Amino acid sequence: MAMTFSVTILGCGSATPSLKHFTSAQIVNVRDKLFLVDCGDGTQIQLRGCRLPFGGINNIFISHLHGDHCFGLMGVISSFGLLGRTAPLFVYAPKEFEHIFKEMLDFFCTDFPFEVVFKGFDSKKQEVIYDDRSVSVTTVPLKHRVPCAGFLFKEKPVEDHIDRAACDYYKVPQWDFARIKQGGDFTLDDGTVIPHERLTKPAEKPRSYAYCCDTAYNPAMIEQISGVDAVYHDCTYSSADELKANQYYHSTTVQAATIAGKANAGKLILGHFSAKYQDENQLLDEALKVFPNTVLAKEKNTIDL
Amino acid sequence: MAMTFSVTILGCGSATPSLKHFTSAQIVNVRDKLFLVDCGDGTQIQLRGCRLPFGGINNIFISHLHGDHCFGLMGVISSFGLLGRTAPLFVYAPKEFEHIFKEMLDFFCTDFPFEVVFKGFDSKKQEVIYDDRSVSVTTVPLKHRVPCAGFLFKEKPVEDHIDRAACDYYKVPQWDFARIKQGGDFTLDDGTVIPHERLTKPAEKPRSYAYCCDTAYNPAMIEQISGVDAVYHDCTYSSADELKANQYYHSTTVQAATIAGKANAGKLILGHFSAKYQDENQLLDEALKVFPNTVLAKEKNTIDL
Repeated sequence: MAMTFSVTILGCGSATPSLKHFTSAQIVNVRDKLFLVDCGDGTQIQLRGCRLPFGGINNIFISHLHGDHCFGLMGVISSFGLLGRTAPLFVYAPKEFEHIFKEMLDFFCTDFPFEVVFKGFDSKKQEVIYDDRSVSVTTVPLKHRVPCAGFLFKEKPVEDHIDRAACDYYKVPQWDFARIKQGGDFTLDDGTVIPHERLTKPAEKPRSYAYCCDTAYNPAMIEQISGVDAVYHDCTYSSADELKANQYYHSTTVQAATIAGKANAGKLILGHFSAKYQDENQLLDEALKVFPNTVLAKEKNTIDL
Repeated sequence: MAMTFSVTILGCGSATPSLKHFTSAQIVNVRDKLFLVDCGDGTQIQLRGCRLPFGGINNIFISHLHGDHCFGLMGVISSFGLLGRTAPLFVYAPKEFEHIFKEMLDFFCTDFPFEVVFKGFDSKKQEVIYDDRSVSVTTVPLKHRVPCAGFLFKEKPVEDHIDRAACDYYKVPQWDFARIKQGGDFTLDDGTVIPHERLTKPAEKPRSYAYCCDTAYNPAMIEQISGVDAVYHDCTYSSADELKANQYYHSTTVQAATIAGKANAGKLILGHFSAKYQDENQLLDEALKVFPNTVLAKEKNTIDL
């Protein structure tokens, strides 16, 4: 069974919450580790609503310091404390956030039962800011009015799977499985070499996901996110409002779809919708003409990669 | 027709949002002026959900600086800015908030199109912190783990209403109405004095509302809120959990009802519920035994005074 790699949308509206949308937040689930990406106002309400376990979140990534991407942060952290968390929590954000964030923590989160570790990054650089045995997260420099970075989640390769029937047939001892999973062949008593490929089933291809919001049309990111299984891209405006998109450093449907196409992405998730569009299917239609495998983000929806 | 004096509940849960409740926030509407009282995480989402006009709010009152009463403040202020507000906004909160609040404003709300005026108060004192032609707001010192005040909204007396039929009968000229509404009598040409009471219908009795949250059982407040038409009172716990209430400086059902009874309140609104009670009707039942005119607060409900 494939291991989980999914994205659950908590909010995909822009600027201020509307009757339809919360502001930006989502959970990236990589093999049951939950990563919170952006944290607009009321994010903890959505976490509750999606029945996501607060305790499963150890890392929070903030793309930039506009309120619709970070005003829910203190609420989330504070609730972690009230719910008895003891594990440290890591918060990754543009380094410009450090001073005010620490001031807020000092004021609102005194006598906390866990440590909040701030990890500032330089939004202008591609930088590996998180790395464990199963996944790495790299910043994707974006083009916005303030320092802003996207996040590229890359699953680590897993070992090939032992083919039990083949190994039994060749009488491979179980203590040798670890070596064979990692690529080893097996030599029979008569000197015949049974190649790795005959003894194993190939591992699943490592998956990847890029969160690219907020940003103006930014072809500079294409190379870095090339071949991702899915990209979530700023899609604040219809292509008819391209001037507005340029002015505010956001993207249109067509710009988002163009990035996804040039990056050979598997799927495009449109989000960060302006409240001005009554019917977002109009936005979807515009993007679909440029990039076929496009979906609209929607609160409480989970997209499996 | 009576002028509006109502309370709309935006959130009445305690500590962290639950599947049932948002954290503390409510709109007190006095003659169509909207006062926002407390501002927990996601308050602006509830304002939207209740279709309350953001532009109608010029004054925000924060009882104390626990996150469940103030983490939504930056979101509300920031959205006011994005929606093009130009009128100054007044924020009343314990004076301890001033430094961090100004730091947050400086960081998140640069180049704002309106002024945010901070009005710090001493939560230990009864102090008139707001006063206009129709209403005054006075702090009510409460007993909590941190500086905390409730708010007493007192409607100003209105003038008596002209009785058109009586005034026509006595041929009172219209230019004299203002004087008569304010209490004047009218003298006929033959010297007969027609008393004020014959020419007018009495004005509605000024109404009042007390928001008393968060607080331990605090009889010291009874005199100040005596005779209010309604009191919203901390009711975090069942009376079975009185020790817990004492420990955390919150109140039980019976304590809230006792305060309402001793203050001769017209109505008791229970709120700030702990998430531990599946069925809040249990809380209502406990309070009803002590104070009959009790209701449970509920998100998006409006209580007319």
